[in-house]
Amino acid sequence: MTEAGITFQLLRGGPNKPRLGLLKTPHGDVRTPAFMPVGTQGTVKALSPDDLLRAGTQIMLSNAYHLYLRPGTEILEKAGGLHRFASWQRPILTDSGGFQVFSLSQYRKIREEGVHFRSHLDGSLHVFTPENVVDIQRSIGSDIMMVLDECPPYPSTYEYAKKSLDLTHRWAERARRRFETTEPLYGFPQSLFAIVQGNVYPDLREESVRFLSALDFPGYAVGGLSVGEPKDEMLQIVRLTAEMLPEAKPRYLMGVGKPEDLVEAVSSGIDLFDCVIPTRNARNGTVFTSEGALVIKNARFKEDFRPIDETCTCYTCTHFSRAYVRHLFQAGEILGLHLATLHNLTFYHRLMAEMRSAISQGEFDTWKALFFESYARNREAA
Amino acid sequence: MTEAGITFQLLRGGPNKPRLGLLKTPHGDVRTPAFMPVGTQGTVKALSPDDLLRAGTQIMLSNAYHLYLRPGTEILEKAGGLHRFASWQRPILTDSGGFQVFSLSQYRKIREEGVHFRSHLDGSLHVFTPENVVDIQRSIGSDIMMVLDECPPYPSTYEYAKKSLDLTHRWAERARRRFETTEPLYGFPQSLFAIVQGNVYPDLREESVRFLSALDFPGYAVGGLSVGEPKDEMLQIVRLTAEMLPEAKPRYLMGVGKPEDLVEAVSSGIDLFDCVIPTRNARNGTVFTSEGALVIKNARFKEDFRPIDETCTCYTCTHFSRAYVRHLFQAGEILGLHLATLHNLTFYHRLMAEMRSAISQGEFDTWKALFFESYARNREAA
Repeated sequence: MTEAGITFQLLRGGPNKPRLGLLKTPHGDVRTPAFMPVGTQGTVKALSPDDLLRAGTQIMLSNAYHLYLRPGTEILEKAGGLHRFASWQRPILTDSGGFQVFSLSQYRKIREEGVHFRSHLDGSLHVFTPENVVDIQRSIGSDIMMVLDECPPYPSTYEYAKKSLDLTHRWAERARRRFETTEPLYGFPQSLFAIVQGNVYPDLREESVRFLSALDFPGYAVGGLSVGEPKDEMLQIVRLTAEMLPEAKPRYLMGVGKPEDLVEAVSSGIDLFDCVIPTRNARNGTVFTSEGALVIKNARFKEDFRPIDETCTCYTCTHFSRAYVRHLFQAGEILGLHLATLHNLTFYHRLMAEMRSAISQGEFDTWKALFFESYARNREAA
Repeated sequence: MTEAGITFQLLRGGPNKPRLGLLKTPHGDVRTPAFMPVGTQGTVKALSPDDLLRAGTQIMLSNAYHLYLRPGTEILEKAGGLHRFASWQRPILTDSGGFQVFSLSQYRKIREEGVHFRSHLDGSLHVFTPENVVDIQRSIGSDIMMVLDECPPYPSTYEYAKKSLDLTHRWAERARRRFETTEPLYGFPQSLFAIVQGNVYPDLREESVRFLSALDFPGYAVGGLSVGEPKDEMLQIVRLTAEMLPEAKPRYLMGVGKPEDLVEAVSSGIDLFDCVIPTRNARNGTVFTSEGALVIKNARFKEDFRPIDETCTCYTCTHFSRAYVRHLFQAGEILGLHLATLHNLTFYHRLMAEMRSAISQGEFDTWKALFFESYARNREAA
């Protein structure tokens, strides 16, 4: 491995405690805990890169599965990588595509070699191996790449989860080797994170942490959660996994979640998050406020000329009323999707900023109690 | 009439010549010739008010028919008018809804009183009269309101066109009376423009200009064109109508058109335009450049890393390639619609700015020849 890649400074924290960190990447710093909006196809839906910056985005997530299928690695390489192609000059993390193969593809066969699957776009056959998924992420040029993993469904038997975990571990070793024997394409170093699996079985999670920690990756994701298991079980697994992970490395909880889930996971020592909830829910007309979520299409907002969230300083809340945003949704106007997305993402980033500030002041528990009190006040959807 | 409303200064011009003007409205100045983007439902599709300003928009058009049906005048009044509802602080012109009744509604019956029609949204029955259309535009609070007119189809017999024109004239008188006996709702004066009709019959157009000029409206629209008649015929009617209209009043050509049509109509002395072409074509993937229109979805742009228009300074052209915008269209991403719309509207506004500058320098004919030479170079769609 000839590259330096990311570095992580833990500024505050301890076992089972919220952590304050500074993740340095070749495209700039990320103050953690941080939320990464999902730019599946190289764009966060309904927002421009300028909008992302305005919302407070520090790092964007994108997806190897989607970008591999469209526009394809050839175009990405000719463009000089995703940063240039999408005009996003801040850090990018790419998921390996493992989860998408399991969630989107109608046909997939898992082999030792890798996973064979059909494209959800045109049914064409493809194979992802731990090696080619590293290569794809070299073509994308993300700052942080993820290893290929198998994400077993919930519920899975212990036997299946164990078998799957062993495969995920062998794949992690192979991905690591490929990473070490290849070079980045665009003149800046990339980093490869591992993914802890083990389904809802504490001893498998422990085994996974032990195995992957020994390989000394620069960062660790907690994968395979938020796939249907009860919320309590998810949070328990997060807590026990975070407790075991090496303290000096960033921890990323994949695909989680609602605002209250982020608060709980930060409590347990998670540093990074990604989730489609703020953006997808926005497009469905659900907006987050400091007093809970609102279904903005609801008739009760017809003549409500207050902003979505009176405490929010985003472009949406400083220029438009609930009544106008509702009108845009009723009329099927694209601007409605844009304004709701911009607001929700601003809300998520502000939530993270508030948590960072509370951790820094040693007041996280007080802040958390106030958050839940206020947030429960007006919850009508989520 | 207790209001002052708009004023118009003709800075340069003469019969059958391009004109340079300054239209002063209660929400700011409009340098003419000017293009008004269409914000049918109180929003220009895929753009925010901030984007409109960035693109160079001086005045937005909106639509009484659409706003009357949704969100309705009650909500608009409670919001304090459309400027506040849509957070657009520059001038607004509203079309009367006459054209929409004739183009969108499946059912309509024209009576002396007004036009009975069914909503294209839910089939409910409504009636537009010259009077209530003024009232609706009072509720909207546009700077410039339009009278209700009948827009006869192409082709129409001379007899039908004459009968329709007489009705349109009686309606214009009634609208004018209603306007004079009602007050604006939001503390600034509004103005009412008349609409010249007469189909493709020169003597009817002449009659219409004579009749409406005698009523001394503060501005005149040329209506009923771009409804299927040959391009040459349209431009002839524009020319002869503009020639007859009072020199000191602004002239607005409704619903026109492509870039080359704007250039021709400015040649004939038109000051204001509106059209869905830059915004609708953008959403269909057609973008305008100084060398003609491009269908950006075309496979030949797959690896074209140049901006849409190398001479353009809009956000789209300074940050993204043709290949990326094509990718966004291929992937069905909203950002593609946004970036293409922002570019097309910037292109239209820049075209108008170039014409103003050429007129001001007395170089319009030279500019026009160069425009057509360059614009024809790469025309593949429009």
